[in-house]
Amino acid sequence: MTDETKHDIMRATYDALCRHGYANLTMQDIADESGKSKASLHYHYDSKHDLLAAFLDYLFEWFTERMETALADVDDPVDRLVVVIETALAPPDDEETPHSEFQTALLEIKAQAPYDDAFRARLVEFDHFLRDRIHAVIQDGIERGTFREDVDPGDAAEFIVSATTGARTRHVAVEHRIDRTRRSLETYIGTWLLADDAEAVRLG
Amino acid sequence: MTDETKHDIMRATYDALCRHGYANLTMQDIADESGKSKASLHYHYDSKHDLLAAFLDYLFEWFTERMETALADVDDPVDRLVVVIETALAPPDDEETPHSEFQTALLEIKAQAPYDDAFRARLVEFDHFLRDRIHAVIQDGIERGTFREDVDPGDAAEFIVSATTGARTRHVAVEHRIDRTRRSLETYIGTWLLADDAEAVRLG
Repeated sequence: MTDETKHDIMRATYDALCRHGYANLTMQDIADESGKSKASLHYHYDSKHDLLAAFLDYLFEWFTERMETALADVDDPVDRLVVVIETALAPPDDEETPHSEFQTALLEIKAQAPYDDAFRARLVEFDHFLRDRIHAVIQDGIERGTFREDVDPGDAAEFIVSATTGARTRHVAVEHRIDRTRRSLETYIGTWLLADDAEAVRLG
Repeated sequence: MTDETKHDIMRATYDALCRHGYANLTMQDIADESGKSKASLHYHYDSKHDLLAAFLDYLFEWFTERMETALADVDDPVDRLVVVIETALAPPDDEETPHSEFQTALLEIKAQAPYDDAFRARLVEFDHFLRDRIHAVIQDGIERGTFREDVDPGDAAEFIVSATTGARTRHVAVEHRIDRTRRSLETYIGTWLLADDAEAVRLG
């Protein structure tokens, strides 16, 4: 399969998930979005499950590349932490409003994880990548004197991942405004993490 | 319907959700757990959806009563905040290990919320009850000099609700250990909120 074919199928999967959700999604729905036949999708992927597992791999690759690109020219530890959190909170398509439909489909997939080893393994990759990235940024910030010495980077990283994950769950389930959690995270970084807590932190 | 009948049906619904999850749940599954006939369930509830909406109401009532009971004899603001967070994090059955199956079913229901007004309205009740309780406890703690004056109780409450919600999502999706988030919350309360940050906070 060419990169372009793969990209087209993945984009169609994304669009189909937004339109139909996870539970009711069929290969035909994905075929309809892609302009390809169902048979040609089955040529590349044995089942809907295989395709969705490949989609999660693709999403992970996209997410990590996006993170590395966003971090590439950023040196200050506070700015780096803000970039990581923004990337974790922001919708995949960079639009101003969060892409609620996709977040909903992703939450459906998360609720399947206990029954599905392939999905769970991929979600663990996302979770640990984010946690480890945050851990590294905070560790570096402590060493450079930007963050307080008594901060435990492991605890802080788990906390931030839980808060960003929870903000996204609440956005889907109770229409929570992501901005509310964003503002709390600013305060958290400014008050808890910063060695000099006079400095204000702005996210977004 | 007597209170006892209602309690039996609600308990059966809880057990059936744990055993079958939300997506595949049938009225027959609930009937099987209750020892009643499917017809007698339909006598009280028109549909599975009605029964599940009533179940969420029951769960909310149970949750709020549990919270008020736990708070009844607790005066110190730090202890009160710990009680609220513990109640939000702890499994419904008070066993030592979190009741993963039920958490999974609840996450499935959360992912349905955008498509289901009745579910969403009930989930909003849970979310806002928890947020408002935390807000009130922190506000009281600030007025009594236990918590720092410069803490914004609204921001802090949103943050704590996001963190506890996220810990539960991660528990389902990636087998996150709730204890990790619990420990971060201790540090958070001890470092960010407490007016005298020498005092240690212990949750659990």
